[in-house]
Amino acid sequence: LVICDHSFFSTKTKQQEIVLSFKQGKYFNKGVGTRDYNPKQMAIREKVFNTIISCFKRHGAETIDTPVFELKETLTGKYGEDSKLIYDLKDQGGELLSLRYDLTVPFARYLAMNKITNIKRYHIAKVYRRDNPAMTRGRYREFYQCDFDIAGQYDAMIPDAECLKIVYEILSQLDLGDFRIKVNDRRILDGMFAVCGVPDDKFRTICSTVDKLDKMPWEDVKKEMVNEKGLSEEAADQIGEYVSMQGGMDLAERLLQDQKMSQSKQACAGLSDIKLLFSYLQLFQVTDKVVFDLSLARGLDYYTGIIYEAVLSQAGVAPVSTEAQNGPPGEESVSVGSVAGGGRYDGLVGMFDPKGRKVPCVGVSIGIERIFSIMEQKAEASAEKVRTTEVQVMVASAQKNLLEERLKLVTELWNAGIKAEVMYKKNPKLLSQLQHCEESGIPLVAILGEQELKDGVVKLRVVATREEVDICRADLIEEVRRRTSDAS
Amino acid sequence: LVICDHSFFSTKTKQQEIVLSFKQGKYFNKGVGTRDYNPKQMAIREKVFNTIISCFKRHGAETIDTPVFELKETLTGKYGEDSKLIYDLKDQGGELLSLRYDLTVPFARYLAMNKITNIKRYHIAKVYRRDNPAMTRGRYREFYQCDFDIAGQYDAMIPDAECLKIVYEILSQLDLGDFRIKVNDRRILDGMFAVCGVPDDKFRTICSTVDKLDKMPWEDVKKEMVNEKGLSEEAADQIGEYVSMQGGMDLAERLLQDQKMSQSKQACAGLSDIKLLFSYLQLFQVTDKVVFDLSLARGLDYYTGIIYEAVLSQAGVAPVSTEAQNGPPGEESVSVGSVAGGGRYDGLVGMFDPKGRKVPCVGVSIGIERIFSIMEQKAEASAEKVRTTEVQVMVASAQKNLLEERLKLVTELWNAGIKAEVMYKKNPKLLSQLQHCEESGIPLVAILGEQELKDGVVKLRVVATREEVDICRADLIEEVRRRTSDAS
Repeated sequence: LVICDHSFFSTKTKQQEIVLSFKQGKYFNKGVGTRDYNPKQMAIREKVFNTIISCFKRHGAETIDTPVFELKETLTGKYGEDSKLIYDLKDQGGELLSLRYDLTVPFARYLAMNKITNIKRYHIAKVYRRDNPAMTRGRYREFYQCDFDIAGQYDAMIPDAECLKIVYEILSQLDLGDFRIKVNDRRILDGMFAVCGVPDDKFRTICSTVDKLDKMPWEDVKKEMVNEKGLSEEAADQIGEYVSMQGGMDLAERLLQDQKMSQSKQACAGLSDIKLLFSYLQLFQVTDKVVFDLSLARGLDYYTGIIYEAVLSQAGVAPVSTEAQNGPPGEESVSVGSVAGGGRYDGLVGMFDPKGRKVPCVGVSIGIERIFSIMEQKAEASAEKVRTTEVQVMVASAQKNLLEERLKLVTELWNAGIKAEVMYKKNPKLLSQLQHCEESGIPLVAILGEQELKDGVVKLRVVATREEVDICRADLIEEVRRRTSDAS
Repeated sequence: LVICDHSFFSTKTKQQEIVLSFKQGKYFNKGVGTRDYNPKQMAIREKVFNTIISCFKRHGAETIDTPVFELKETLTGKYGEDSKLIYDLKDQGGELLSLRYDLTVPFARYLAMNKITNIKRYHIAKVYRRDNPAMTRGRYREFYQCDFDIAGQYDAMIPDAECLKIVYEILSQLDLGDFRIKVNDRRILDGMFAVCGVPDDKFRTICSTVDKLDKMPWEDVKKEMVNEKGLSEEAADQIGEYVSMQGGMDLAERLLQDQKMSQSKQACAGLSDIKLLFSYLQLFQVTDKVVFDLSLARGLDYYTGIIYEAVLSQAGVAPVSTEAQNGPPGEESVSVGSVAGGGRYDGLVGMFDPKGRKVPCVGVSIGIERIFSIMEQKAEASAEKVRTTEVQVMVASAQKNLLEERLKLVTELWNAGIKAEVMYKKNPKLLSQLQHCEESGIPLVAILGEQELKDGVVKLRVVATREEVDICRADLIEEVRRRTSDAS
């Protein structure tokens, strides 16, 4: 039993097999499509979260939290074809509930429900997807999203530019290697489809095919357009020309002059906004990583304007095993190395308001699971040991019958706010106490013995150097603080 | 539609009513039995979590995380009668899953699965209960638990005493008013039942009745024992005598001499451990709040030794409205003012090990939802405003056409790690920029104008005092840091 193809076994036999494999203590989580985080993974996770949260706070975001489940109806009709991946709760009496699929729809529901017309908020929480077996390999069904969104009626492209600035800051600070942020606009895509002769009712499905360009060569994408989606070869070729274009503000300017493209009002509106966006990005000093890329086509229905996605350059990414490829990076499907995504969705809040009042929104979702994987690999590769606790000092003794004295001393330390441990044994061996320090990276040991008690001192041992020095008991707390000031 | 009696309406009509009320933007969450946290509540929540987490870290705990759902089978048979409150996921193909009911059972599953024989870990996460309508009033179906557990084969009562020390530290630091920690032992309860003549097969059900003593007078408890549970009046009276006893180490010593009680080996083992526990609690300096209370009888099946529960003294608790009474405090039912609970469960891990290998465990769960409520009430009552962001400075301007200059300056500040905001308008009014600062507690405003730009300065305004001073642009970052050093 390796990673299970979930939806394909609902027979009793297969379930028994999982329960069996669980009882053998193996693969349990793989079977369920989720994972536990062990203390080492949690230490890395905490570090990543701290970087992300301080960035969100630096930009003045508040935070909210919403329940893990929503009314099923709240999620219906928001995710297009992917709706089949929503986890429903069993009908045990009461209303029908589903596990949240992302944080964007609950956010929109929250805004509408509380009649909030402007807010800048972040939300870090787990979301749930019953991932398609074919896609399941290596993906988790429970994974974190870190979302930052700005809701409110503001002047064009200012909040949008800040979202990109935030992606830039986070990816730089996490030190994941080189990256690019691709930018496009839903209106440019739609305008492009229109001027290339795609029938109106095929915009969405052709858009989904364009979305595969980061995983498939153009030839295959074209084949899908023509053979499966019934597009004319001519239209496909015209699209092919546009979606190969990449650039900056200059490209937007050129396309505004483009004979065909300029015929679409929608496209022109999008292109003007791209120009404006780039002018703000220059002020934010992030244009070195941002590319206007006409092949970017994020799948979700609710985007209405600018869209973006950050990808790590292959050079910067360690080879990711199937196992380590976790949840989606942003709100939808993954391209290799994709670590953040988002865009503008001006219509979503209105879907939850009884009077349809719109609240314009733009946001970004950081693909944290992939970042965890990369950080974990880096930690594995590095010589530096990941500490899973922050203990500053271990209270130990070399002699028997000193449990009470150890408990007294550790109490003094705790009461002074020092992170301290004591072994839960009456008479632990000194060696096992020192070994525990080595293993868990505790830098100091406060050793008590008959002589030390008599002299009113504590023998302070530096684990790394084995240096030992007698410290007057009254000075111990200050000394521990002084020696561990960066760890505390 | 007030708080809904969940299990009693599964008809289409009632569902429509909820959806309707949701569309009206009201009571949505009450209907589902969950709640959103707004930014103010989140700010309070963050503060409480920080206090609790630093205590857990001070005691050397690592942290782990487990998925929100487990195999249904993992939860089966662990919660006695309360199993009916477990939320199941819909069978959409694949194995049967349930939302976790507490963090203790997933912890035990994690230990067995990974063959971990000793660990000190904390886990803060949400758990789920389809609470019984009669109990639902004011309870949430999604709520946080903050668990600290010590697993491992150690000398008696040392880890147990540390759990109580932790409860003591957290409740003291949160400043919730006076509290007591009641302690008892499952073995003392069982021994007491035996010597009072309760038949073996009635221990659990009589124990559940004793558990109601914090909500019902003894007369009613006795009636339930005699009339509903079929206990003899004599046996009930004998129990009544014991469960009225409270004390410290002295009470344990007296009961060890008690003619009847001393006949039970189990009770004697429990009483000796209580004595030992109190000796460690003295060294930990927490005996002033700990009471050995024979009426304490926590309901969960898995406890095997010491049990405890912390209650706030009524004086310390503001009157809690029905609305504010949130999730259970510990792992089971609430008594008024109960904010933490736990105990020893030496058999649970073995239930998940294929060879039944036991890992002794003791732990405590902090009833965080109730603590949130109290902190929220305190915040409401206090004159001090709760800030929901940490923004140090707002970049503003009094004149038109300075958007670019504002964006440049805010970029300088962000890049230097200053928490800063700028309004997303081309030409915002100075008044509205200042108002935003007043409302969200931003202490400083950096004002740009033509003159300032010419002079190479920024006008720094202190929001509280309206004092304004010109700062050389090169010194602005240092000046902002200096003036907001406690806020950053």
